[in-house]
Amino acid sequence: MTTTTPTHYQTTIRLRTEGKSLGRFTNQVQEAVKESGVQTGLCSIFLRHTSASLVIQENADPDVLKDMENFFSQLVPEGRDYRHSTEGPDDMPAHIRTALTHTSEQIPIMNGRLALGTWQGIYVWEHRQRSHTREIVVHITGH
Amino acid sequence: MTTTTPTHYQTTIRLRTEGKSLGRFTNQVQEAVKESGVQTGLCSIFLRHTSASLVIQENADPDVLKDMENFFSQLVPEGRDYRHSTEGPDDMPAHIRTALTHTSEQIPIMNGRLALGTWQGIYVWEHRQRSHTREIVVHITGH
Amino acid sequence: MTTTTPTHYQTTIRLRTEGKSLGRFTNQVQEAVKESGVQTGLCSIFLRHTSASLVIQENADPDVLKDMENFFSQLVPEGRDYRHSTEGPDDMPAHIRTALTHTSEQIPIMNGRLALGTWQGIYVWEHRQRSHTREIVVHITGH
Repeated sequence: MTTTTPTHYQTTIRLRTEGKSLGRFTNQVQEAVKESGVQTGLCSIFLRHTSASLVIQENADPDVLKDMENFFSQLVPEGRDYRHSTEGPDDMPAHIRTALTHTSEQIPIMNGRLALGTWQGIYVWEHRQRSHTREIVVHITGH
Repeated sequence: MTTTTPTHYQTTIRLRTEGKSLGRFTNQVQEAVKESGVQTGLCSIFLRHTSASLVIQENADPDVLKDMENFFSQLVPEGRDYRHSTEGPDDMPAHIRTALTHTSEQIPIMNGRLALGTWQGIYVWEHRQRSHTREIVVHITGH
Repeated sequence: MTTTTPTHYQTTIRLRTEGKSLGRFTNQVQEAVKESGVQTGLCSIFLRHTSASLVIQENADPDVLKDMENFFSQLVPEGRDYRHSTEGPDDMPAHIRTALTHTSEQIPIMNGRLALGTWQGIYVWEHRQRSHTREIVVHITGH
């Protein structure tokens, strides 16, 4: 039980992605936690798009990210006969890949830091072929 | 930092689904946010079922929803030799499709409104062949 | 609206998993909710690993869990030519299966209990062949 009044802190992170790949932004989220001043709480991240997504994945071997992208490229191929195709062959697969992964993630904050495991990094996954600017809202509550 | 005391507001939305399709209910969630009076906070939605799920997906072209359903119908076919089949051939695929998508989602609230991107809508995805009534608990915290 | 000050309560659950299977731990999470004293709030659970994941799934028929594991074993086969393979053939599939399921889940708390549906249980899903000890951070906020 705490006797201090919990805060609700929000900030928006804008990230420039490269086509069809995973980009780590753990440090920007950790920076937001520091800015909030919250020691014990919850950090919620929300991606404002439907053709990119969030994943928390291994932060050590870059080959994991390549294998991940290769697997999803084959699982959701561009060559299928989709109805929704006006924005290009990569558009509908991008929506499906987003549904298969995550739009929001939540990470507890302990002692002023994200309670990530040793091997966990936070990634935005661009599912379109071209580079985009993606917006992520970080919401932090705690005290 | 805020000096007002944050609130915790809850309400339950009941939705009648059609078989194997996505139904948008963004407006009902937005209405709950308005009812809560929260200006800055977090809206958490939770689906109380294991054969339907939540996704945040594109709200413009209905073809996206049909392509999405078609893809998942083929990815998780009804014809497989599942052990769990007493409730019908669509039951076990429904559980798997739920695991592949989402039971809970979180959306930040800014200026009294859901901070969704321009193209984002909130959907309940019915994975059974028949219509069901599905319950969604909306939890809102903030001030 | 509440006039009491919301709390932020955290605890860590450690679970011993068996290889490639789902283990239910709903009771441990319910125990944490009881410990927190929160009557109306939100329970967030976070798994600190990248080769195991969380799912909320059916709690009655154990065959559902076997079908689930079989489906994912076939969807993400061990025999593929992954770049990342130094930790064994089950390692990269474990990362992919984690991305396809969940690292964090949120469940509302009503009247001091998790607002789970009748058939919902909370599971940790071990995606490696061998048994592991997995850490789950439970964060509870409410009043």
